[in-house]
Amino acid sequence: MDYVYGPGRNHLFVPGPVNIPEPVIRAMNRNNEDYRSPAIPALTKTLLEDVKKIFKTTSGTPFIIPTTGTGAWESALTNTLSPGDRIVSFLIGQFSLLWIDQQQRLNFNVDVVESEWGQGANLDVLAAKLAADTAHTIKAICIVHNETATGVTNNLANVRRLLDEYRHPALFLVDGVSSICALDFRMDEWGVDVALTGSQKALSLPTGMGLVCASPKALEASKTAKSVRVFFDWSDYLKFYKLGTYWPYTPSIQLLYGLRAALDLIFEEGLENVIARHNRLGTATRLAVEAWGLKNCTQKEEWFSDTVTAVLVPPYIDSSEIVRRAWKRYNLSLGLGLNKVAGKVFRIGHLGNLNELQLLGCLAGVEMLLKDVGYPVKLGSGVAAASAYLQNNIPLIPSRI
Amino acid sequence: MDYVYGPGRNHLFVPGPVNIPEPVIRAMNRNNEDYRSPAIPALTKTLLEDVKKIFKTTSGTPFIIPTTGTGAWESALTNTLSPGDRIVSFLIGQFSLLWIDQQQRLNFNVDVVESEWGQGANLDVLAAKLAADTAHTIKAICIVHNETATGVTNNLANVRRLLDEYRHPALFLVDGVSSICALDFRMDEWGVDVALTGSQKALSLPTGMGLVCASPKALEASKTAKSVRVFFDWSDYLKFYKLGTYWPYTPSIQLLYGLRAALDLIFEEGLENVIARHNRLGTATRLAVEAWGLKNCTQKEEWFSDTVTAVLVPPYIDSSEIVRRAWKRYNLSLGLGLNKVAGKVFRIGHLGNLNELQLLGCLAGVEMLLKDVGYPVKLGSGVAAASAYLQNNIPLIPSRI
Amino acid sequence: MDYVYGPGRNHLFVPGPVNIPEPVIRAMNRNNEDYRSPAIPALTKTLLEDVKKIFKTTSGTPFIIPTTGTGAWESALTNTLSPGDRIVSFLIGQFSLLWIDQQQRLNFNVDVVESEWGQGANLDVLAAKLAADTAHTIKAICIVHNETATGVTNNLANVRRLLDEYRHPALFLVDGVSSICALDFRMDEWGVDVALTGSQKALSLPTGMGLVCASPKALEASKTAKSVRVFFDWSDYLKFYKLGTYWPYTPSIQLLYGLRAALDLIFEEGLENVIARHNRLGTATRLAVEAWGLKNCTQKEEWFSDTVTAVLVPPYIDSSEIVRRAWKRYNLSLGLGLNKVAGKVFRIGHLGNLNELQLLGCLAGVEMLLKDVGYPVKLGSGVAAASAYLQNNIPLIPSRI
Amino acid sequence: MDYVYGPGRNHLFVPGPVNIPEPVIRAMNRNNEDYRSPAIPALTKTLLEDVKKIFKTTSGTPFIIPTTGTGAWESALTNTLSPGDRIVSFLIGQFSLLWIDQQQRLNFNVDVVESEWGQGANLDVLAAKLAADTAHTIKAICIVHNETATGVTNNLANVRRLLDEYRHPALFLVDGVSSICALDFRMDEWGVDVALTGSQKALSLPTGMGLVCASPKALEASKTAKSVRVFFDWSDYLKFYKLGTYWPYTPSIQLLYGLRAALDLIFEEGLENVIARHNRLGTATRLAVEAWGLKNCTQKEEWFSDTVTAVLVPPYIDSSEIVRRAWKRYNLSLGLGLNKVAGKVFRIGHLGNLNELQLLGCLAGVEMLLKDVGYPVKLGSGVAAASAYLQNNIPLIPSRI
Repeated sequence: MDYVYGPGRNHLFVPGPVNIPEPVIRAMNRNNEDYRSPAIPALTKTLLEDVKKIFKTTSGTPFIIPTTGTGAWESALTNTLSPGDRIVSFLIGQFSLLWIDQQQRLNFNVDVVESEWGQGANLDVLAAKLAADTAHTIKAICIVHNETATGVTNNLANVRRLLDEYRHPALFLVDGVSSICALDFRMDEWGVDVALTGSQKALSLPTGMGLVCASPKALEASKTAKSVRVFFDWSDYLKFYKLGTYWPYTPSIQLLYGLRAALDLIFEEGLENVIARHNRLGTATRLAVEAWGLKNCTQKEEWFSDTVTAVLVPPYIDSSEIVRRAWKRYNLSLGLGLNKVAGKVFRIGHLGNLNELQLLGCLAGVEMLLKDVGYPVKLGSGVAAASAYLQNNIPLIPSRI
Repeated sequence: MDYVYGPGRNHLFVPGPVNIPEPVIRAMNRNNEDYRSPAIPALTKTLLEDVKKIFKTTSGTPFIIPTTGTGAWESALTNTLSPGDRIVSFLIGQFSLLWIDQQQRLNFNVDVVESEWGQGANLDVLAAKLAADTAHTIKAICIVHNETATGVTNNLANVRRLLDEYRHPALFLVDGVSSICALDFRMDEWGVDVALTGSQKALSLPTGMGLVCASPKALEASKTAKSVRVFFDWSDYLKFYKLGTYWPYTPSIQLLYGLRAALDLIFEEGLENVIARHNRLGTATRLAVEAWGLKNCTQKEEWFSDTVTAVLVPPYIDSSEIVRRAWKRYNLSLGLGLNKVAGKVFRIGHLGNLNELQLLGCLAGVEMLLKDVGYPVKLGSGVAAASAYLQNNIPLIPSRI
Repeated sequence: MDYVYGPGRNHLFVPGPVNIPEPVIRAMNRNNEDYRSPAIPALTKTLLEDVKKIFKTTSGTPFIIPTTGTGAWESALTNTLSPGDRIVSFLIGQFSLLWIDQQQRLNFNVDVVESEWGQGANLDVLAAKLAADTAHTIKAICIVHNETATGVTNNLANVRRLLDEYRHPALFLVDGVSSICALDFRMDEWGVDVALTGSQKALSLPTGMGLVCASPKALEASKTAKSVRVFFDWSDYLKFYKLGTYWPYTPSIQLLYGLRAALDLIFEEGLENVIARHNRLGTATRLAVEAWGLKNCTQKEEWFSDTVTAVLVPPYIDSSEIVRRAWKRYNLSLGLGLNKVAGKVFRIGHLGNLNELQLLGCLAGVEMLLKDVGYPVKLGSGVAAASAYLQNNIPLIPSRI
Repeated sequence: MDYVYGPGRNHLFVPGPVNIPEPVIRAMNRNNEDYRSPAIPALTKTLLEDVKKIFKTTSGTPFIIPTTGTGAWESALTNTLSPGDRIVSFLIGQFSLLWIDQQQRLNFNVDVVESEWGQGANLDVLAAKLAADTAHTIKAICIVHNETATGVTNNLANVRRLLDEYRHPALFLVDGVSSICALDFRMDEWGVDVALTGSQKALSLPTGMGLVCASPKALEASKTAKSVRVFFDWSDYLKFYKLGTYWPYTPSIQLLYGLRAALDLIFEEGLENVIARHNRLGTATRLAVEAWGLKNCTQKEEWFSDTVTAVLVPPYIDSSEIVRRAWKRYNLSLGLGLNKVAGKVFRIGHLGNLNELQLLGCLAGVEMLLKDVGYPVKLGSGVAAASAYLQNNIPLIPSRI
């Protein structure tokens, strides 16, 4: 498929799948292996232990499922809930919309709390619902930590605070697809019951692993949850965990070694440093957008996302044309606007294995693109704003000091 | 995880995951890409078209699902059937057992037809059931083409013959996990309604793709099937097929390119030649087993499998010890006996990207292993029997003539 | 050696070894092969034919030698000259200096024509020498097409013009290490007798291949040249060319396949487009340097190099500190100042498989570095100047139109 | 170049280039890097230290030269000798012949001691020459440790004994290309002055590194040796060793990382275990040859080689046909007979990263080939003889106990 070859690197700035570090590509460059030999369970054991660290949990039980984020969603829901269960779910963009669609098709009674796209979850409404629900009919709160379509980060600590305030026993289910391992996420501290992510996001792997982590309360719920499930059933995993062979069906050998390498790189950098790096990249991007005179789709600073920025374009510009042209002229991959914001925003994904100069190259490209499509940008302005900030904030690479 | 390093190649003879050809490993050695760019849909289009060839269908609709064989099973069932539906399912070994377990947990009314492990599906019982079912309460026949646990290949043409004979409209669902692309399989000719396989079997890829192909009749059934499904729902795929973007959620970029390379190699060799090669490998293995004075777990020649041979060991030997020792001493990976035949059989997988000298190396290893565990084998006997046959039957490699 | 790991891509802007395209890395990701099988000679044949295209020769004979540029130099000299032969050689920077050192140690009588570093070869002196040399004591003119240490491109057409003007039969030997396949180079048209390059430069491969091309006149000279040589002896290659096996000793299988992939990419982009791309990158870099208020080490526009720019820093700055810091803080690899210009210049290599956004990321990094070391640069200024030019000049990627 | 694709693994049994272990292929799967950054010198330092271990020297100085074995030969000779120097050199096969050809072309006065091909170096003649040379006109003894063309291993300890006996100061130069890291080789103990090998042999890397190790006496000799050299000049390396930057010209980044991985695997297995493994493989091969009723080209047991076996075929068979057919029918790469033994022998290389089952697969293939070309071999006989020995002698893989 070389017909799309362009000279030099592809600049991959979609919010997933993201750039894979070379050491991870290397680790996956291998033949298959017998997954029933002693080697794979031994490897798996280290992975399950270490995966908990990126969820910041010690009491949770992780599942590494050969699926995508959509499958991870299904795993979270079907293992903890029964058909007809009432759940409160926040609709704030395309990915929360898709999750809600799944929730409805899985026959839950979904109480949708909608916000304008560009805003975060409306927690006032949640508070009201919790307050009213003295009978505890609400079985779960489903929330996307970071809405990838609009670049909105919800405040999970506040969700927990409300649940605690109203002493509400609802399960707290979190889509962390574009947040975990990039944004501050604390499963245990925030009392999250199920958290999940996909390998192709901040973990910087290929697609193919849904990582789901269940709290003891979620595990307990799975014993009585009546949703039909087999492939996604945690109980099969738990059975093989006990046996020490770990896998109810064949895992991807390559992804297991890749995950090992990815975690090693993350721990070498330090998870807090990884999160700080994402904050630098997000801040720099927002400064550039401001310098260009454009608006962030995210309406308030409290919701700003450090993994993806959705940029609003003036009405006379079709944002899809920017994305198309980015790929055709600059070998730059940007994210499209989806659904309600199609044509109105383009997205810069700044998550995963990425550094500051890569981002500045992207921002320089966006400036040329804006000019290409007729927006009167001052070339260099965004890069200047971003690099003024970065030059003051980038630390030395610890391994090179 | 180098603590298991052994000098030289690992001899991988489990019946999956199997050896990946070097050109396929190379094709997958790549960074992620934006799957919404024009490149991935263009690639996907060729894949969907070419995947049909390995199913031998022109009228079928393929789905390439980021899952394993277990997920492909679930996809086949939930898209075509409704809870409570009566299905006839054949239990002949561990993998048919697992599929039946899934069928039951998905709330179908499973009419299990059991055979002794080592025998094929009892089609006489099927005939009787079809004859009796004038009300057409049987909604589907579920059968494993090749039972990987016992090395038994069922005769699918005969199943179709019975369905036709009794003019029975039941759907014909086939697990082709360890058959398709290695054994003779003809979806259209045999009127199979759903056939499925996994990438890590005869396609010789990493685990991570469930390939499912649906007949027009199966697609029609999916419109009314009431089983709950989202991740595995064909309708989401069909929606994106129409849009020409193909993917309802993120695919593995690496596996797509890997599948392209795998299919190219298969077509270059010629699918019929691939099948003939598997027949050579299977025949050679059986001749060796006979020369060793051991019994094939498969009780009759009509069920002999060309992709995996389960070898019965004398009662005074624990077959698991053979498998353990193979890995520890010879860097050879053999298949364990599973469930009812645990300790009684070991399995030689001879499927996927494999040639005759690789197999002969394995057979020589098995001879030493048999001696190791106290079986009075004549060293060289199996290799002699196998190579006497092979030397008469191996063709020249076409590309090298 | 993970102790130097830094998050994200390394930004490789040394003037060699340069970035390897992913398809080339893939092509080299392979086991060894028997180089005496029919496959390798067949592959080699296509390589020798296609390598001529990048030298722009039809009459030349190429040699692909398992060595570096230094070895390629030695091959060019020892095959065409005899000890004591008088040669005219231009000293304009570190690499021409090293070549002259080699020439002297190989016992040639080297007539060195020195220029100030930052200037090109003094062709007036050459003219005078040629005019005076009516006895034709000058056996060869040795010239570096592009001096990598100072970013100076010599005018080879003018050298040929002088040789023709004085009807001088001297051999015309050209180091094209950092020019061929990136700058305009015309072996046949300019009557170059030996041209050479290294795989790790504009061909964008790993180090390990010296590519040398000899004109019929050079081949003729090799028959009588008395310099001692065995490993570098063309006659051994020519003997095996005739046999059709091509290799007097074992080649690197990986580099052969890598070269095939590299040439395919170059021809797909179009050699003229490759050269035009280098001109864009060089121009953009020079515009940035100007915008920063810094001086190009290259003193006149006629010598500007499109593959490397050496940037002079003010006397109060140590350019080595910029290079050190680039690696330690920004994961950016810049070229050091060498020898006479050590501490005075840093170098931006812009050759090989590289695109515009990569360069802009580098330029943004250099701006931050300049600020880091106390130079009062206006952040964004260089990027603005470069992108103003680039936005007007980048073509659409042909394969994506 | 897929036109030579054959299903399954290529069985690579030429005596170089040999199979590369997967972890080494992985280690080399990488982009280029700046070789002047701190990372590469730090890596190089460990390599130079560890390379000494495979030469079994503590006092030697290693050079890792971007060249082949032929270049390593030239490096050994030109750094230690002057034109006209008398050297005693043993001609026992094609590779010693080629080295002697090089010695002559480098203008040494070569005193050739010839043996019939299939015999080892005639040390009686050496003794006589040393005894007669009271004036010490012999400046060096050049000997191939293992002649790859005939599978003959010379006794280096005896050479040293003779030199000591006659108190002769001649330098002792050893081609260890197909021995070092596979056969017992002791640089310090045997008083070897220059030893050399190539990366594509027992080190199991791609071609491209000549590894040369010089004793203090050889280094001393290099100060006065008058042979012309630049690329191969040790003094350039020594200069950069002192600077701590190590490289006088650009090394292959990929091969450096590959060498690191290769050495790690060798040390993990244990050098003595590596040598013992080669002895097992050599012994097994010889037992098979005997069982087939064929003769080893090597005439006496004392010269048997554990890295390559040259098998004599009956006069009515053309051994080249065996090699051709091996590749065309069985995807097996065997070594051709070279020069004097062309058509008379085929060679089985059993060196490098190879295990016993791989060898048995090869031997099974050779049996079929012998039958193919009309030799009345008893199929299975060689495998039986080899595996009877191996089954008694293969140790458990230490990392898997």
